[in-house]
Amino acid sequence: MKFFMGPHIWDETVEDIVAAGHERVDDLSQADVFVFTSSNPEDFPDKLPDNIQFVQHCFTGVEGLIDAGLITEDGIPWANTAGAFATPVAEMGLMLLLAQAHRQKEVTRAASFDVAGHADRTQQWLYSNLHRGKKKLVIFGAGGIGKEFIRLIEPFDMEVIAVNRSGREVEGADQTVKMADADALWETADIVVLVLPLTAETEGIVDAEKLTAMKDSAILVNIGRGKLINTDDLVEALKNDEIAGAALEVTDPEPLPDDHPLWAMDNCTISPHIGASFRVARLHVGKTAAANMDAFERGEEMPTQVDPSAGY
Amino acid sequence: MKFFMGPHIWDETVEDIVAAGHERVDDLSQADVFVFTSSNPEDFPDKLPDNIQFVQHCFTGVEGLIDAGLITEDGIPWANTAGAFATPVAEMGLMLLLAQAHRQKEVTRAASFDVAGHADRTQQWLYSNLHRGKKKLVIFGAGGIGKEFIRLIEPFDMEVIAVNRSGREVEGADQTVKMADADALWETADIVVLVLPLTAETEGIVDAEKLTAMKDSAILVNIGRGKLINTDDLVEALKNDEIAGAALEVTDPEPLPDDHPLWAMDNCTISPHIGASFRVARLHVGKTAAANMDAFERGEEMPTQVDPSAGY
Repeated sequence: MKFFMGPHIWDETVEDIVAAGHERVDDLSQADVFVFTSSNPEDFPDKLPDNIQFVQHCFTGVEGLIDAGLITEDGIPWANTAGAFATPVAEMGLMLLLAQAHRQKEVTRAASFDVAGHADRTQQWLYSNLHRGKKKLVIFGAGGIGKEFIRLIEPFDMEVIAVNRSGREVEGADQTVKMADADALWETADIVVLVLPLTAETEGIVDAEKLTAMKDSAILVNIGRGKLINTDDLVEALKNDEIAGAALEVTDPEPLPDDHPLWAMDNCTISPHIGASFRVARLHVGKTAAANMDAFERGEEMPTQVDPSAGY
Repeated sequence: MKFFMGPHIWDETVEDIVAAGHERVDDLSQADVFVFTSSNPEDFPDKLPDNIQFVQHCFTGVEGLIDAGLITEDGIPWANTAGAFATPVAEMGLMLLLAQAHRQKEVTRAASFDVAGHADRTQQWLYSNLHRGKKKLVIFGAGGIGKEFIRLIEPFDMEVIAVNRSGREVEGADQTVKMADADALWETADIVVLVLPLTAETEGIVDAEKLTAMKDSAILVNIGRGKLINTDDLVEALKNDEIAGAALEVTDPEPLPDDHPLWAMDNCTISPHIGASFRVARLHVGKTAAANMDAFERGEEMPTQVDPSAGY
């Protein structure tokens, strides 16, 4: 297919799409596909020419585009990049989990060996050992990123429980549980990882009730969307040591204001949403975009077509 | 065999040794083996009774005990715990590598999303991708800890080169190189991991010359001993961006003084030597101690017998 890319040209992405047999054109009116390399609705053209058959978004989250009225149920089809950044986001998630588990923020902020004793007493180990047994890790949302996360933590030999809507078995998980049956898992998890999309059902899924239910030794990791967690509830839970720590690649609000209490809490490790930045995206989007074009040409459903009613 | 444990009783360790068929006694004069649960030479008895046939040290590094004259070539045999803490130390090493690679210290110290752009531009990814290719990781010293580290990073699909004295193939490494032939590796490594014991040959192995030779995008990880690195040279190299970062579980001096410049450097991630603390050690030492007792009883060389002339 003929594709136009804008507002930014990502060389690596162009290269991958062209390598798959598609052609880049310089004029939107000559293109079949618009590859939109921004997540800001204001960068989107006021009106797309009729020749455009679908829009390829270059990031995963589309709720902002839906809210802005760009993605609609009766409008032009959109595809996102669900799963394309699976490995980098999973790598960021493992970094955050390990850093929080080993109290890296406490050590960095104290800038002193004086906290070695406290950090040692409170650190958590991911690996399974004879006397402490296996850690139980529950991962909510086991699509592309979730599967990659499970693959990266495999050597730690944890007990891994995947939660998804269907309950269909997830590769690498010891057990898969339907979202509807997952309530009991909050109390027993040593580590909870959120990789869910943001929808009406998932918004605020982690609230005061869930945080109270969780073990006081548990660590909560969010590599999904910031609004999956009620931030005020999280601040309270961390203040009261209701859980051992949180590790956040995404926050709500985002950017997190400089005076937000989470910055000063040793039990909250934060990464400023750089796991799927445009620098990372441009290395990965091309393959997904090309696969969507291939499917569209064959008249099949695109692998990462957005469902506007579901919100992702 | 009959073993006496002191100055501290580690329940998990006792349990593991007893489970292997040995017997704990409360009196050093009734024991065959002294299981010494301190790394402080001052905690060691002035004179051991003649019934003691070997001493089981509960940590890996023995240079302090050699310097104190407790371990000598013509004295009683000692065993250490080489490799016993392989998994926890490797886990700590991976945490440090990931945290430094993803600029976690910079973000924590800035406590602001304002550094997101800089952190993103300067972060390193471990995983291999189409456009950036495989990271080359060189690990110096591939005994128990090194092998575990290689196992934990396997899912990142890096090119792994192990360096050891013999050049004998190391499981999981793509290539094994003799220490004597390793000079050329410093210039090409993306990540250098040190797991060497401290000996006359390895002390200060990382100095200004090596740091200058290394790529300016390289990350140096030390999970061996602090004195493997010339700290002043490291400070200069980090100030001048001669390498991208260092990640240290061990330092020289140790504890690192509160006014040491490394604390304030975003490109130096520090963990206060809590990867093989006594809380961790007690979970792991028992198996090693029992294996040494088993071998000693059979008249064989103990698996982790210390070679005083080699220094480990």
